[in-house]
Amino acid sequence: MTAQEIQTSWPAVVENADAAGDVLLVCEHASNQMPAPWGHLGLTADQRQAHIAWDPGALGLARGLARRLDATLIHAPVSRLIYDCNRAPDMAGAMPRRSEVHDIPGNATISPAERLARTEAVYLPWAAGLHGLIARRIALGRRPVIVTIHSFTPLWHGQPRAVEFGVIHDADPALALAILAAARGLTGLRSELNAPYSAADDVTHTLRLHATPYGLPNAMLEIRNDLISGPEAEEAMAAALAPVLNMGMAEIQKQAKAS
Amino acid sequence: MTAQEIQTSWPAVVENADAAGDVLLVCEHASNQMPAPWGHLGLTADQRQAHIAWDPGALGLARGLARRLDATLIHAPVSRLIYDCNRAPDMAGAMPRRSEVHDIPGNATISPAERLARTEAVYLPWAAGLHGLIARRIALGRRPVIVTIHSFTPLWHGQPRAVEFGVIHDADPALALAILAAARGLTGLRSELNAPYSAADDVTHTLRLHATPYGLPNAMLEIRNDLISGPEAEEAMAAALAPVLNMGMAEIQKQAKAS
Repeated sequence: MTAQEIQTSWPAVVENADAAGDVLLVCEHASNQMPAPWGHLGLTADQRQAHIAWDPGALGLARGLARRLDATLIHAPVSRLIYDCNRAPDMAGAMPRRSEVHDIPGNATISPAERLARTEAVYLPWAAGLHGLIARRIALGRRPVIVTIHSFTPLWHGQPRAVEFGVIHDADPALALAILAAARGLTGLRSELNAPYSAADDVTHTLRLHATPYGLPNAMLEIRNDLISGPEAEEAMAAALAPVLNMGMAEIQKQAKAS
Repeated sequence: MTAQEIQTSWPAVVENADAAGDVLLVCEHASNQMPAPWGHLGLTADQRQAHIAWDPGALGLARGLARRLDATLIHAPVSRLIYDCNRAPDMAGAMPRRSEVHDIPGNATISPAERLARTEAVYLPWAAGLHGLIARRIALGRRPVIVTIHSFTPLWHGQPRAVEFGVIHDADPALALAILAAARGLTGLRSELNAPYSAADDVTHTLRLHATPYGLPNAMLEIRNDLISGPEAEEAMAAALAPVLNMGMAEIQKQAKAS
């Protein structure tokens, strides 16, 4: 085994750590890596490239946004099928047995010890990394704006999805509403609130654990992955969405001053 | 300098880690220790023994409860005047300049770098320790019940406080209400809800950060410190409150089954 193969803790990856901007970009589903000791979970190469293993395009888009917004970016280093960092350890989706139409053989039966081991190897280092970034900013008087970046598949159980850009909120909808209005004003994207998922689908764990307790402005962004299907498309989407985020943040700052 | 004096990280202290009970006891204000490099913050020995530096009696009571409930206990190793682990890094109370009638000279002017250093040395290790306990339990299918143990001074700005036992809730009042009812039924303690403080006073940071996001039952208990003023009194109070907590937990389990 190589050193990487016997790694037992998978720390979050942080880019642009000293960025001056207010936004902290979070990408829980950036990677489709399935390192030892988990192997490929019994999946084919095609399945490991598919949206069930990660959010294709999300990391490239997040990097484009990080450059344009001078934002710090944190992303998870292993596949959501090993551990989905946007899920609590007892949620079915944390280590899913099935995703859309695909059974995940390596997750068919997970013992309590294995569930604990994945939590310790992936979820806890991820959570500590993200919490550390947030708490350090807050200590310095620079309260971050938390924006998570996701992508979704254009076909779900065979049905096409019309929405192109979804903006999802947890307890505080202010930033999501402002981003949605900006997207409708500044882009031609078919943009919807709480689509294709909402907090009721348990998709806002990161926002709930890391942003809501500190009262930080926050939103989850979902981009249909056929619109970010390669480096050029990712860059074009980042160029389209950076002004949307800036306008959304300006709006909530205006609201905060007025209240 | 001794090794202890140059310690730069103050991890949370965990007792009874393998306990089988459902309760996880949390004591953020267990200690009045003010280690180097902070020294005594310019306070007298009397001030360092007073309630401003810690919650006198809370750790002894928590230990008595831990034994009786077979509960894990986690407590902070340094004084709340160095860093109050029940406060976010930008709350005034995290590193207070003044507490009740006492100025805290060593906290009169805290630079951003010092605020960051205390956050990294005390708050982040504390939060990681508590989050780790909770996430590991959840991964094993043993969702903990979070109960924080505090004490308050019988005289506040010279005025006596009549309340003896306060039960405080964050977003979910279920456990606090059940404990309050049990205390009124089982003890002669003058027991009140959200007294002498409430969530509006920013005293529920631990509950909000660690219990609410996971939907864990939770409550904050406040005992008047003249009732736990030594080992015998702490034991007597633990003996009185252990059945109260058991009855409160039984009540919310009954409610959960009925819903």
